Amino acid sequence: MAEKIDIKSIGPEISIIMPHRVYYAETDRMGYVYYGNYASWFEKGRTELLRKLGMSYKEIEDSGILLPVRCMNVRYFLPVKYDEEVSIITYISLVKRMRVIFESKVYDQKDVIRTSGTVELACVTKEGRPTSIPDKISEMLKKNLSA
Amino acid sequence: MAEKIDIKSIGPEISIIMPHRVYYAETDRMGYVYYGNYASWFEKGRTELLRKLGMSYKEIEDSGILLPVRCMNVRYFLPVKYDEEVSIITYISLVKRMRVIFESKVYDQKDVIRTSGTVELACVTKEGRPTSIPDKISEMLKKNLSA
Amino acid sequence: MAEKIDIKSIGPEISIIMPHRVYYAETDRMGYVYYGNYASWFEKGRTELLRKLGMSYKEIEDSGILLPVRCMNVRYFLPVKYDEEVSIITYISLVKRMRVIFESKVYDQKDVIRTSGTVELACVTKEGRPTSIPDKISEMLKKNLSA
Amino acid sequence: MAEKIDIKSIGPEISIIMPHRVYYAETDRMGYVYYGNYASWFEKGRTELLRKLGMSYKEIEDSGILLPVRCMNVRYFLPVKYDEEVSIITYISLVKRMRVIFESKVYDQKDVIRTSGTVELACVTKEGRPTSIPDKISEMLKKNLSA
Repeated sequence: MAEKIDIKSIGPEISIIMPHRVYYAETDRMGYVYYGNYASWFEKGRTELLRKLGMSYKEIEDSGILLPVRCMNVRYFLPVKYDEEVSIITYISLVKRMRVIFESKVYDQKDVIRTSGTVELACVTKEGRPTSIPDKISEMLKKNLSA
Repeated sequence: MAEKIDIKSIGPEISIIMPHRVYYAETDRMGYVYYGNYASWFEKGRTELLRKLGMSYKEIEDSGILLPVRCMNVRYFLPVKYDEEVSIITYISLVKRMRVIFESKVYDQKDVIRTSGTVELACVTKEGRPTSIPDKISEMLKKNLSA
Repeated sequence: MAEKIDIKSIGPEISIIMPHRVYYAETDRMGYVYYGNYASWFEKGRTELLRKLGMSYKEIEDSGILLPVRCMNVRYFLPVKYDEEVSIITYISLVKRMRVIFESKVYDQKDVIRTSGTVELACVTKEGRPTSIPDKISEMLKKNLSA
Repeated sequence: MAEKIDIKSIGPEISIIMPHRVYYAETDRMGYVYYGNYASWFEKGRTELLRKLGMSYKEIEDSGILLPVRCMNVRYFLPVKYDEEVSIITYISLVKRMRVIFESKVYDQKDVIRTSGTVELACVTKEGRPTSIPDKISEMLKKNLSA
């Protein structure tokens, strides 16, 4: 169940690796990260991946486009403990005309996977109407798709 | 996309309906409930469903069994706004020897679905080893499976 | 340290009592409610107190006034455990021209105090400029001041 | 109200400066960090300050001592916005036989203070009984008191 990968083999241009330390705030009474808190890790991952690609989430929104989450799937392989430091790796795994899927994987210090999640974002106008992802953004996303 | 159902037609013995009001704490800068916060709603739903069936989550844990989350899938049909009051309906949708799946649906005041989620729990010992769901609990869960 | 009061003696017209159950989501690895999570309980308390007095927080904001928090003081007398049900009692303790102070106290099932907090709200315009609390709201708040 | 200080003048041996970026998860519908979320920033600050001084919070707990929060005071001078990057500076401001007070200040990129908080921790045994801070820890804390 515990997949082991060579994190360093992932091309730096198509993913982002973010270190994350677990504090009390994220744990629950089992002593592990609460299962709902990973969503914020995935958000952190895709936000920084976009920034790395030259597209700030905030700028995208300021330009009139919102990217609400439509779907999230999370698999919890092994829990993450208090005070642990993990690596959150985030890729773009699919780009369609009106939606994009990001994938995040959480690895521990021994490169063993702990959690993985996919998050699908839709593209809507400020008024909430579905719309196509603007060309400039779409091209950038496609160019950086994880193979 | 927005499924409409007669909430009252759901047999009260196999599900639980919980009202929930949205406060500032759960919203994000879009003015809606943050996508990661629904996990706590689903937890609230299954905890109260179990309590209704005579099984307190806390008692189950005190008896030496833990039920960690293995998998969560969430679909966000329509956002839930600040100050809205919604109904969280929770069922048991699958019971296997070592795992159980709960399903939760969030409906607004007009019985339009906003969000749905499935959460799969595994059964492990205090030491974290996979184990069968104890017979007494398993029978109770199966007896209350949503058809 | 543990203050004991007769909750029922509090005049219903000047306070609100809200029941609250603790789920996994709010606990931390000590098995208790995380110290930062009480802020959302206090918010819940003052929001429902205002609603009871005929003033929805949302309506106040829709009318062009925001009430951001300027100050919060919390005292943690005794921890609140997982699965416990507590009562959150909220009063208005001070009303000035440009600010209002709410006080919340958390009691357990035996009427022993666990936590108390005061939250001071300022009154600002949508643009963030300090302004007086509108007369209609101010009068209502003063009329319901806890002695 | 907005205090301006030369962050670089703070002696590195008695404080810790941590950068923090604001994501969606921490914001509320005003578009700012929710007032309850600063508690986790203060926790992050004091945890890393202790680590810098050679005392891991986790190791302290593993040695049989817990440091629950007894008191928190927060002042919100100016809100912190989505996507902003701030600096959280944390000091030790008081050490007594059975308690220690940490102080955290949040500064923006222009060294303007946004939020400040003091958090008082008590020292208790695993069973929850008040006890003296162990000598080794107490001396370390006192040696690093902010003047």
